[in-house]
Amino acid sequence: MVIKDSEIKRRYFDWAASAPDIALSPPVPGLYGNPSSLHSEGRTAKLALEDARQRCAAVLNVPANTVYFTSGGTESNSIALFSSLMRRGQGRIIASAAEHSSVREAMDTLDKMGKPTGVIAVDSEGRVTPEALLKALNKYKDVRFASVMAVNNETGSVTDIASLTEIIRRQTPPVHIHCDIVQAVGKVPLDISGWGIDSASISAHKIGGPRGIGLLYLRHSAGQGKVEVFYKGGGQESGIRGGTENIQGAAAFANCMEMYAGPKALRENYENAKARWNRLIASLSSIERCTIIPKRRSHLSAQGDVTDIFSPYILQVGFKGIPGEVMARALDDLGFAVSTGSACSSSSPERPVLAAMGIEENLRIEGIRISQGFTTTDEDINLLLDAIAEVLKFL
Amino acid sequence: MVIKDSEIKRRYFDWAASAPDIALSPPVPGLYGNPSSLHSEGRTAKLALEDARQRCAAVLNVPANTVYFTSGGTESNSIALFSSLMRRGQGRIIASAAEHSSVREAMDTLDKMGKPTGVIAVDSEGRVTPEALLKALNKYKDVRFASVMAVNNETGSVTDIASLTEIIRRQTPPVHIHCDIVQAVGKVPLDISGWGIDSASISAHKIGGPRGIGLLYLRHSAGQGKVEVFYKGGGQESGIRGGTENIQGAAAFANCMEMYAGPKALRENYENAKARWNRLIASLSSIERCTIIPKRRSHLSAQGDVTDIFSPYILQVGFKGIPGEVMARALDDLGFAVSTGSACSSSSPERPVLAAMGIEENLRIEGIRISQGFTTTDEDINLLLDAIAEVLKFL
Repeated sequence: MVIKDSEIKRRYFDWAASAPDIALSPPVPGLYGNPSSLHSEGRTAKLALEDARQRCAAVLNVPANTVYFTSGGTESNSIALFSSLMRRGQGRIIASAAEHSSVREAMDTLDKMGKPTGVIAVDSEGRVTPEALLKALNKYKDVRFASVMAVNNETGSVTDIASLTEIIRRQTPPVHIHCDIVQAVGKVPLDISGWGIDSASISAHKIGGPRGIGLLYLRHSAGQGKVEVFYKGGGQESGIRGGTENIQGAAAFANCMEMYAGPKALRENYENAKARWNRLIASLSSIERCTIIPKRRSHLSAQGDVTDIFSPYILQVGFKGIPGEVMARALDDLGFAVSTGSACSSSSPERPVLAAMGIEENLRIEGIRISQGFTTTDEDINLLLDAIAEVLKFL
Repeated sequence: MVIKDSEIKRRYFDWAASAPDIALSPPVPGLYGNPSSLHSEGRTAKLALEDARQRCAAVLNVPANTVYFTSGGTESNSIALFSSLMRRGQGRIIASAAEHSSVREAMDTLDKMGKPTGVIAVDSEGRVTPEALLKALNKYKDVRFASVMAVNNETGSVTDIASLTEIIRRQTPPVHIHCDIVQAVGKVPLDISGWGIDSASISAHKIGGPRGIGLLYLRHSAGQGKVEVFYKGGGQESGIRGGTENIQGAAAFANCMEMYAGPKALRENYENAKARWNRLIASLSSIERCTIIPKRRSHLSAQGDVTDIFSPYILQVGFKGIPGEVMARALDDLGFAVSTGSACSSSSPERPVLAAMGIEENLRIEGIRISQGFTTTDEDINLLLDAIAEVLKFL
C-alpha cells in the first residue's frame, strides 16, 4: 500500500496522552457567576457546579461529598501527595516505581523537602503485587501514605488495587492509600468504594473532556484519612482546592463521565477495544522485528486476554533497531499519531517506568506507546498495521 | 419606580468576582493534541499554546518567556508564595494585610509549616505605603519575599507598586517582590517591566475569559529571583506548572487579553468606567445613610479622582443599619448582583481587609462591594441607584 501525502487523513493513536475532542461542549451561556457569591448568578453557578459533582459521583458510585473538582490529574495527585507534608512527623510516603511523572516528581520534591520517602518495587510488567507492597511496608515500618496507580500510562498494566487495600487496611497506625486512576476511568472496570482506597485522581481530557478540569476523590472529608492542603485559596471545594470554580469545565466533564465512564458505556467500549487490541497485538507479534512490552502480553493476548491484566487502550511496543522517536516520527509522516513514553515525560529519554520493570536498555529506547479510544475503528487498526509495515521496509 | 418581577432584567455589578461571559469563545476543534507530544497533533497544540503565550506577553509588554500559564490567579499566587518554602533557611516572607484570601491563606499555611512570616501594615485606604514597607523590612531584617497586591479586590485601592520596588531594589540580599495584579489587568494602567516586580498573577475570568486559566509572570526564569515549585507534574511550562496544558483556555485567554487589556482598550474603557463611577459615587454620597469606604474616596471622586488612586471598577459602600448581606439580597431580588466582601471569602463574615484598614465594626458589617466592567452602561448605573433608593425605603 502506498500512501500519498495528499490523501493523508490523520489517525490518532495517542489517546493516553489526550483524547480527541469527541465531546467538546460549547460554553453554556449564563454560567458565569462566581459560585461563592450569594446573588442569583452565583447561585445558578453553584447549582451547576453541584449538579456536575453529583453526576460525576453517580458515575463513580461514590457519595457526592467525596468528589472535589481540581484543574486535572496532575493537580489531584499533587494535592493528595503533598498533603502528607502537612502531617509532619507522621511517617513516610511511598509510591510505586512505575507512577506517572506527576507522582514521581512530587516524590522527588517531598524527598528534597525532608519528608521520608520510599519506593514500592514493580514486577516485570509494571504492577505492584501484594508481596511487593508488604515488603515495602515491612522495610520501612513508618509508612503512613502509599501511592499506587491503577493502570500504567505507558504499558497499560492493570494493578489489582483491591488486593493492596486489603493489606493496607490491616496496618496500624492506618496508611492512606492514594490511587491515580487517570488511565482507568472509562477504560477498565473500577470500583472506588469496593477497593476502599482513600483518594483517587481523575483527568477529564483523557476521556474527551476539556483541559483544565479533573477531580480528586477523597474518602474522608475529615478525620484519619483526611487530606490537608496548602493551596487553599479562598477555601473553595471545601478547602481542598482554592480558586474560582471552573463551572463550564465541570459541566462538560460531567457530560463526558456520563457518556463514557458509566458501567454500560465502559463495558461496550471495553469489549470493542479489546477485540481491536487483540487483533493489533496478534498482527504485531507476527512481525519479527517487533517486541510487545512486556513480552508476556503477546501470549496473553493470543489467548483472548481473559485475565484483563492489561488495559485494551494502551500498548507499548518496540521495533528492533528503530529508536522509538524515529518510529513515531515516521508514523507521524504517514498520518498516525503515536507517542514515545508518556506525553508528560516525552522530553526525557530515560523511560524510568520501563527501567523499573527491568526492560533492557535497547528495548526501552525502541519503545513506542500506541493508545486508542472510544472512536477508534477496525479500519484505523488496519491502516496503522499497513503504515508500520511500510515504515519497516525502509528503516 | 416600581419594578415588577416579570420585568426583571439582570444587571450585573459583581465583575470583581467574575466577569460575565462577554467573550465566551467556542472551543476550537482540532486543538486536542498534547503539546508535549512530538506528533502533528502535539505540534499544532504546542504552536497554539506558544501563540497564546506570545499574545499575552505582547499585551503585557513583557518577554514571552516570562509568561507561564496556570489554572488561575489563586494558583499563580500559590506557586509564587510557596516557592519561598523551597528557599529554606533563606529568610522571611511578608505580605500586606489587605491581600486576597488566596495570599492570606497561603501565608497562614506557610506560617504553620514553620516558615517565618510577617505582615506589612496597610493605611486607612488599604494601600501599602513606602513607609509601611520600609518599617516591615526594618522590623524583620531577614525578609526575602514580599507580596503586595496592585488593586485591592474589596475597595479598589490602587497601590503605587513602583514606589515599593524602588525600596525593594535597594535591599541586600535581594528581596523577591510578588504582585497580585488580578484586579489591575484591563482595569488600571500597569507596567510590569517598568515597576520591576519579580512575579505577578493574572486570572482570565476576571476580564471575560474562561475559568481554569490564568498566568504567572516571572521576571527571572533562573537565578536570584527564581521561583522553584513543588507541583511540578510532568515539567510543563518549563517546570513552573505541571499538568497537560489548557490550550483552549490559553487561546481564549489571549483573545481576551488583546480585546480588553491592551493600552488602547484599557484607556477607553477606563475613562468611561471612571465617568460612570464618579457619577455613582456622587449620587451615593448624597444619600444620608450611605458611607463610601474609605470615606475620602467620596471627596476625591467629587474632584474627578484625578489622582487615580482608586480603580474605577470597584466600590465598597455601606448603608447605615443594613447588614451588607441583607442589602445584597434585597438588590438581588430586584435583579442586581452585588457582593459582600470578595466572592472568595463570602462565607466568612469577618472582613479582614476592612479590619486591617481600621474600618469600624458596624461599617464592616454593612459593607457591600459594587463592581462594574467593560459592558456596564449609564442605564445600569441609573437603575442601580433607583434600586438602592427603593430598598432604602423599606429597610
